[in-house]
Amino acid sequence: MTDQTAPVAITMGDPGGIGAEITLKSWRDHRADLTPFYMIDDPNRIDHINRQLNLNCAVEPVTGLDKIGDVFKDALPVYDLGDRVLSLPGELNPQDAPLVLQSLKIAVAQVSRGQAAALVTNPVHKANLYKAGFSHPGHTEFLADLASVKTEPVMMLASRRLRVVPVTRHLGLSAAISTLSESLIIETAETTVRALQRDFGIVAPRIAIAGLNPHAGEGGAMGREDIDIITPAISILMEKGIAVTGPHSADTLFHDSARETYDVAICMYHDQALIPIKTLDFDTAVNVTLGLPFIRTSPDHGTALDIAGANVATETSLVAAIKMASEMARMRAKNHPHV
Amino acid sequence: MTDQTAPVAITMGDPGGIGAEITLKSWRDHRADLTPFYMIDDPNRIDHINRQLNLNCAVEPVTGLDKIGDVFKDALPVYDLGDRVLSLPGELNPQDAPLVLQSLKIAVAQVSRGQAAALVTNPVHKANLYKAGFSHPGHTEFLADLASVKTEPVMMLASRRLRVVPVTRHLGLSAAISTLSESLIIETAETTVRALQRDFGIVAPRIAIAGLNPHAGEGGAMGREDIDIITPAISILMEKGIAVTGPHSADTLFHDSARETYDVAICMYHDQALIPIKTLDFDTAVNVTLGLPFIRTSPDHGTALDIAGANVATETSLVAAIKMASEMARMRAKNHPHV
Repeated sequence: MTDQTAPVAITMGDPGGIGAEITLKSWRDHRADLTPFYMIDDPNRIDHINRQLNLNCAVEPVTGLDKIGDVFKDALPVYDLGDRVLSLPGELNPQDAPLVLQSLKIAVAQVSRGQAAALVTNPVHKANLYKAGFSHPGHTEFLADLASVKTEPVMMLASRRLRVVPVTRHLGLSAAISTLSESLIIETAETTVRALQRDFGIVAPRIAIAGLNPHAGEGGAMGREDIDIITPAISILMEKGIAVTGPHSADTLFHDSARETYDVAICMYHDQALIPIKTLDFDTAVNVTLGLPFIRTSPDHGTALDIAGANVATETSLVAAIKMASEMARMRAKNHPHV
Repeated sequence: MTDQTAPVAITMGDPGGIGAEITLKSWRDHRADLTPFYMIDDPNRIDHINRQLNLNCAVEPVTGLDKIGDVFKDALPVYDLGDRVLSLPGELNPQDAPLVLQSLKIAVAQVSRGQAAALVTNPVHKANLYKAGFSHPGHTEFLADLASVKTEPVMMLASRRLRVVPVTRHLGLSAAISTLSESLIIETAETTVRALQRDFGIVAPRIAIAGLNPHAGEGGAMGREDIDIITPAISILMEKGIAVTGPHSADTLFHDSARETYDVAICMYHDQALIPIKTLDFDTAVNVTLGLPFIRTSPDHGTALDIAGANVATETSLVAAIKMASEMARMRAKNHPHV
């Protein structure tokens, strides 16, 4: 059961990155506006970074989650992940990789039991995890595996002004084109519709589907995929009763008045989705994983190793991720109180 | 010689489109802010549309160009292209295609003789021209041919906040990827640099070059073109003394602070360039053709047949195109008074 009064769990991420710093700053400067949250980390490490960077936060180790709301008023609660973290901000240390994963495992267990309302993940460094034997393509796939989810999760980027979902994600552009299929578009759209209904309270989400080629191929004059793959997928989605339009010329899909015509734009490849949202809302876009049994968001940036420990990292995107996660949790609890 | 006091020539475009309507509205509502301009069209047609739509403009046929400035104060000057146009707004008539081309030929002759300071083209309908035997890929190639230009012209989209140049233009995405080459990137960047110096008064233009793949390929993990094609092109441009950076991750190249770091972004394909500028400045982006011996701009929209004659078309982009053309003409005259 999702408990709307439960706190939000925040994972450690790579300890070489800016995760600790931005989580401390989120607590220090934004706690009045946020649902109580706690970090799953090494409390000594968090306290050390707090002192080192003169962040003037209070840090409190916790062993249970029932009093997080009380603790949170006066200190950032840190749930001990069970071992000491060695790396300092700015350093990559494969030795800490098991603890990066441990933080995620604890978080998934807690959110699955309803002790946490939602999960916000700090950025991990994939190459560092691979060195330690990590074999999942990324963060999201590891979470899907922990949650025993069979279908591919979907990545949505969401900001105040726009929601976008790339059908293909971290693939070269040629590989993305050859990966595109009718079924991939249909599954992605269906997962997106379910999530917008359940976690965003949109009863009949309006889906705009972008074409692959310029001007959606101009009737086949500039590429056939819009006709051969995307249009049939749209027909099937329409038959299923989904409010879908397209394929749209991608260049005219994201200006002010175009954005009013849909709730989410489903895009064919990474940059088609990420260029418009990062152009409009660079600092406040949140990465939302759809299709997991629990709510998971993350800030839309990486570990930022180069500035970690320098006290210049901004917490804007993490704060937006925490806000979105708790709004989604409230919506889910309201719509499906017994889920 | 470019005469900065010469008027701006505006071509007819496809007479089925919104060209006449938006040119009349530009004169009616914006003439105080604009360099005098004249249309190369059938004066009877323009007067008819003016009356039909109750636009309350004065229209004056002219046979010479030396008094345009005087005429312009009280009426839209229309230089007679020499024959009667049959199609009405909203209709496509291949019979008028020779006159569409005639308007362009007259404009190129006048701008080449310095009687016009610059050329602004109303949208043409390519399929309609093809039916009449037109064999150029588009508007721009026809102009290049009329001007006996050997190198490929370059398309730039420019607005107040951003300038972008797509290296490949109207090609399907797969075809764009396979067309990409080191020499195409270098030639495009060099033409762009020359134009920014001569016509925009930017002494040492800062060029940002986008990668093709997500995150510019992440060191080859997501596609090789960034390493194999784009990076070598950038090295050669640097050796030539051009202030160039890249390949940049395209998704983070267009937000507010990123845009301050360059004067133009050179993009690898149509949507990579057009998504950000149309997201930011949908109504005011101007299409500028670089690499022609004369200045040519055009509004960044098509013929809009569906709304032609309904008096709802907005002249915003045409006004921006006229403004940019005359600013470019002033800059060119100042920098190169004897060109």
